[in-house]
Amino acid sequence: MRVIQEEHAVVMVVCELGISAERLQAVEEECRRRGLQPQRLQSGSRYFITLAALANDHRLALEHWPGVERLVPTVNSFRPETDSAPLAAQQVVLRPEGGVLGGVRIGVIAGPCSVEDRAMLLETAHAVREAGAIGLRGGAFKPRTNPYSFQGLGEKALEFLAEAREQTGLAVVTEAMSVQQVELVARYADVVQIGARNMHNFVLLSAAGRCGKPVLLKRGWSATLEELLHAAEYIIAEGNPQVILCERGVRTFEQHVRNTLSLSIVPALKQHTPLPVIVDPSQGTGLRGLVNPMSKAALAAGADGLIIEVHPRPDAALTDAEQSVSLEQFGELMSELPALVTALGREMAITND
Amino acid sequence: MRVIQEEHAVVMVVCELGISAERLQAVEEECRRRGLQPQRLQSGSRYFITLAALANDHRLALEHWPGVERLVPTVNSFRPETDSAPLAAQQVVLRPEGGVLGGVRIGVIAGPCSVEDRAMLLETAHAVREAGAIGLRGGAFKPRTNPYSFQGLGEKALEFLAEAREQTGLAVVTEAMSVQQVELVARYADVVQIGARNMHNFVLLSAAGRCGKPVLLKRGWSATLEELLHAAEYIIAEGNPQVILCERGVRTFEQHVRNTLSLSIVPALKQHTPLPVIVDPSQGTGLRGLVNPMSKAALAAGADGLIIEVHPRPDAALTDAEQSVSLEQFGELMSELPALVTALGREMAITND
Amino acid sequence: MRVIQEEHAVVMVVCELGISAERLQAVEEECRRRGLQPQRLQSGSRYFITLAALANDHRLALEHWPGVERLVPTVNSFRPETDSAPLAAQQVVLRPEGGVLGGVRIGVIAGPCSVEDRAMLLETAHAVREAGAIGLRGGAFKPRTNPYSFQGLGEKALEFLAEAREQTGLAVVTEAMSVQQVELVARYADVVQIGARNMHNFVLLSAAGRCGKPVLLKRGWSATLEELLHAAEYIIAEGNPQVILCERGVRTFEQHVRNTLSLSIVPALKQHTPLPVIVDPSQGTGLRGLVNPMSKAALAAGADGLIIEVHPRPDAALTDAEQSVSLEQFGELMSELPALVTALGREMAITND
Amino acid sequence: MRVIQEEHAVVMVVCELGISAERLQAVEEECRRRGLQPQRLQSGSRYFITLAALANDHRLALEHWPGVERLVPTVNSFRPETDSAPLAAQQVVLRPEGGVLGGVRIGVIAGPCSVEDRAMLLETAHAVREAGAIGLRGGAFKPRTNPYSFQGLGEKALEFLAEAREQTGLAVVTEAMSVQQVELVARYADVVQIGARNMHNFVLLSAAGRCGKPVLLKRGWSATLEELLHAAEYIIAEGNPQVILCERGVRTFEQHVRNTLSLSIVPALKQHTPLPVIVDPSQGTGLRGLVNPMSKAALAAGADGLIIEVHPRPDAALTDAEQSVSLEQFGELMSELPALVTALGREMAITND
Repeated sequence: MRVIQEEHAVVMVVCELGISAERLQAVEEECRRRGLQPQRLQSGSRYFITLAALANDHRLALEHWPGVERLVPTVNSFRPETDSAPLAAQQVVLRPEGGVLGGVRIGVIAGPCSVEDRAMLLETAHAVREAGAIGLRGGAFKPRTNPYSFQGLGEKALEFLAEAREQTGLAVVTEAMSVQQVELVARYADVVQIGARNMHNFVLLSAAGRCGKPVLLKRGWSATLEELLHAAEYIIAEGNPQVILCERGVRTFEQHVRNTLSLSIVPALKQHTPLPVIVDPSQGTGLRGLVNPMSKAALAAGADGLIIEVHPRPDAALTDAEQSVSLEQFGELMSELPALVTALGREMAITND
Repeated sequence: MRVIQEEHAVVMVVCELGISAERLQAVEEECRRRGLQPQRLQSGSRYFITLAALANDHRLALEHWPGVERLVPTVNSFRPETDSAPLAAQQVVLRPEGGVLGGVRIGVIAGPCSVEDRAMLLETAHAVREAGAIGLRGGAFKPRTNPYSFQGLGEKALEFLAEAREQTGLAVVTEAMSVQQVELVARYADVVQIGARNMHNFVLLSAAGRCGKPVLLKRGWSATLEELLHAAEYIIAEGNPQVILCERGVRTFEQHVRNTLSLSIVPALKQHTPLPVIVDPSQGTGLRGLVNPMSKAALAAGADGLIIEVHPRPDAALTDAEQSVSLEQFGELMSELPALVTALGREMAITND
Repeated sequence: MRVIQEEHAVVMVVCELGISAERLQAVEEECRRRGLQPQRLQSGSRYFITLAALANDHRLALEHWPGVERLVPTVNSFRPETDSAPLAAQQVVLRPEGGVLGGVRIGVIAGPCSVEDRAMLLETAHAVREAGAIGLRGGAFKPRTNPYSFQGLGEKALEFLAEAREQTGLAVVTEAMSVQQVELVARYADVVQIGARNMHNFVLLSAAGRCGKPVLLKRGWSATLEELLHAAEYIIAEGNPQVILCERGVRTFEQHVRNTLSLSIVPALKQHTPLPVIVDPSQGTGLRGLVNPMSKAALAAGADGLIIEVHPRPDAALTDAEQSVSLEQFGELMSELPALVTALGREMAITND
Repeated sequence: MRVIQEEHAVVMVVCELGISAERLQAVEEECRRRGLQPQRLQSGSRYFITLAALANDHRLALEHWPGVERLVPTVNSFRPETDSAPLAAQQVVLRPEGGVLGGVRIGVIAGPCSVEDRAMLLETAHAVREAGAIGLRGGAFKPRTNPYSFQGLGEKALEFLAEAREQTGLAVVTEAMSVQQVELVARYADVVQIGARNMHNFVLLSAAGRCGKPVLLKRGWSATLEELLHAAEYIIAEGNPQVILCERGVRTFEQHVRNTLSLSIVPALKQHTPLPVIVDPSQGTGLRGLVNPMSKAALAAGADGLIIEVHPRPDAALTDAEQSVSLEQFGELMSELPALVTALGREMAITND
């Protein structure tokens, strides 16, 4: 019943396992010859090629090309699968000397909502590194609904984050909110985050695609699965396939939480994309007491990682006090994860992977 | 900002661990003396008393009564907790000779959406028993949106379900849609189900409260946490504390699923009630391919059990074909659960507990 | 993307203007011959026949039957129309000596949320009659989320309502919440209301279909357009085509209102059904201050009437205090409507139409 | 129950009617002295001052300052009003020689979703001018979910729009999607539009606040009333109070429309802000057939104007074909509005006001 606008279809080519380099190039050349702008993604030894299909030519006839296993539409035209096996996530290297995320590896990124000062950041960084995180989050520029609220420390915070990386080896993940900030953030951080408020900011997405660093893309507050994949395409289309998708809760009528964590998007995404998917149980619920169970639920649903707000003194946090867990609560969660991760047939990522 | 109507508050008294029988009775007597209609619930060795508080007397002063640990409001007035520990679920005995659910026990109920004929029901019952289920679900009366759709076999189906119980020992769980059906269903079944469409049907809830059997209460399509607890109160108020709550997906803008499984309600409910909470990943997603990961996610979030639609030949199912898993898919899921359940520090319920 | 279950299609036959009685009977006979259970509806001099179509036979070939203008599917299979003209609403006679609603007539039903006592009811009835209402609403049995809340005066309230009708000529509209109550309510009231909580209570809908009185059917909190039409079919299928549909707000993330009045359903319904559609701006917003503008918006969107909560002393109302307007506020609204209604090319209904 | 983050409160000072210039300045000076960053807004002869209040000082004590009538919080802390009278909208001059919108004036802006070529734009501009519109909309840069979709003609389109203004006198309204585009768009257009996807793009909002032209701010897909007001504050805080708010539908479970037009936000906004509010029934429903009734409903709810997608050949439109009305349909709607607007006690704006 819902009317969906006709748009050009983006299609992903799933290449056969063990496709030769020649055949891979031949497929890409054929796509280029047809004006389809191919982008190559890799997941383990499997290759994928995304391309822009013409609206008037849904039958690309690439299915029968040597080395091609099947075509997966990534847009409006695709139907939910009932039985299809999930695609394994491609691995994303958060930083060269640090942890990876995806494949069998489950990685945890943690840190304060915003970098409030040097001391609290370093204290948090050491504690989450100790507990087993591979990434350090921390807002330098805070998007605030109210223009008169605390807006973050800016470049000063980026310097503190870089210092924390030197001391701990953690990969730094932080948000850029404008084209100008992308460059600045990419100079200091290992992973550039695009926040939920900017998931539809196509100018920013394209800039992130050119920044040379992996991009953590958060789902918008009411974005559909297709829109999230389309937003990722804006980044990939610039030649950067190192994209990590992140579910962070959607807006519903629910009143017992600030956001409704919609975990079914995790296995649904995995039917359609090899991009790794992580979950933010802090923003995704808005309540500290739900972070532990919902973190476990996210991993059981198939997520490749978590991003969690941690604060040395949560009740005194300048932002998001209600959803930040303490260092102790974070440590307790991290001590409980390995058994769960093993039961799920996966492994915790480690900083010196 | 949301305006919530002022209503009388229902309060739950959490009694101290090891409270003596005398003190327990004294508290109840005091409540009765004040006209507060106490109902006793038990979770392990812990006792709870629900009671109707007067709107004008929120300060019940029962906090300081001997044996009383704390008061938990169960309605509008209650605030989401940030750090409070979950309450352990009281155990519900599905059938005297069969499995229990709650406490450390995780129980799985499975079967076809509707009982289509005797052969398919018995085939399914034996298969899910073999795989480790403790309950058999199966619709005798089907609530159909369209009045001209297949409406179920009625009492004939109840007879088949009772026969399946004789052969397998499984507890029979089936829905009653009207006051008249409650009596009929309670004669054949072990657990009477109230469906999502009837969660606000207070006349039916009261009838279920008088039926003498445990009640499985499904959350309405857009019911809040409080409304679900209030609906449970309608049952408990008739003297039947054997209520199992069930999350089955809510309505949102999401388009990749038929319903959005809102798993955060599981740990949120456990901060407020000792009633066991189970999850329906079949109705809760509408897609067979998501049942496996979302079942695991539900348990990791703290659910006490699952209710799953299983069909010997899903694509030929008369109802809910797209969300029914095959016997093989169910068997595979059940073989994967024990490791997960152990990692979560819990145990699978068994039919001859 | 959204998966909609395959269900049997209900189809409405739009008969040609001026179809002869013989042809009308011939079409119905043909439908019966095919097992399609025809029900006749009339809107002015236009006839409609609803019937149950077989899932395997969507092409009924009735389009070419003499006297048949077109077929309108009323269920899942139907697509939103972009340009189709609205169907004029059939007129429903609220009471033989009283007002009608539908066609060009716009009717207003008003009264307290619940009948609190005889004096307040009679005061309200005289005031709303004076202001131009044609119906008197007032709850005798109140569905309360909380089982310990005020549940209404019951049969006593029905007697007061009947007395108010004797004194004012207003048609009495009140809710029945169970099969037993339907009979009782139909004995006293002119129109039996089915509330939002019971829109999916199919047993109750069928009972209302046999009660011999017009039925006011409120949309469920998260019911789709199709589900509302299906619920109406349950009533019509019992031989009662006197159904009035009512939009009363749906559940969304909005926080500035208790419910989101979804007025686009009014013209959307009118593309598919000749049943009159009214709007409840009181329940539909939950805020007294929004009743006036949203009443006007509802009529401008094409609604055939309004149902409004009015109370002599709103702040002292036992139920729904925040959404009840005062007698003065109601009078002011009613004095503003005639100019608007004329501008829309329609007429206000009057009690002695 | 819903947890709302504590944020600094923005407060609006409603000055007494006829406040003297001295007193007005004195109030502003007092605000500046307290570091509250006052911004002046005018609606008719009424003055308002917005200011940033300290979180720790909610009691500003400005209520008793001479000339101050009352304080209206514009953020999280404010409660829905039940009875408060709507604030009259301040008038916004779309272009010096052209129409105004707000106060008693209702203005209609119309044009194609995207500027496809010079001929179709000029044809549309002349037709909507003829029909009574005061503004011409038309996308130069189209935000497309899919990166491979048609992205608009860019600066070429801006030139066509300017030419259309020369020929018709219509004010040009078009969207800017990045900080760089704001400058470019402001050079050609009369009103700079910020789209729903960018309502939370605070960097862009601030840039729009400095562009020297009125800003049309569309509500985000799931933005709350407060968030919309906060976004407006980002613009106003740069010294630009010429902001027009626009409801364009929110995301819900509804399936009969692409978006749910949430008209109750119109009167709710008017209880809190003097900014004019318009409605987009094209995006707000996604269906051409609903544009006429929902336009009327929007005005009846109190909107100060409409923005409508019109196309000479809707079915051939490159974007939004299903929601664009034809020139004839637009003309018909415009011919029906004056009677309605008069009945509502308002007047149609005209280009040479």
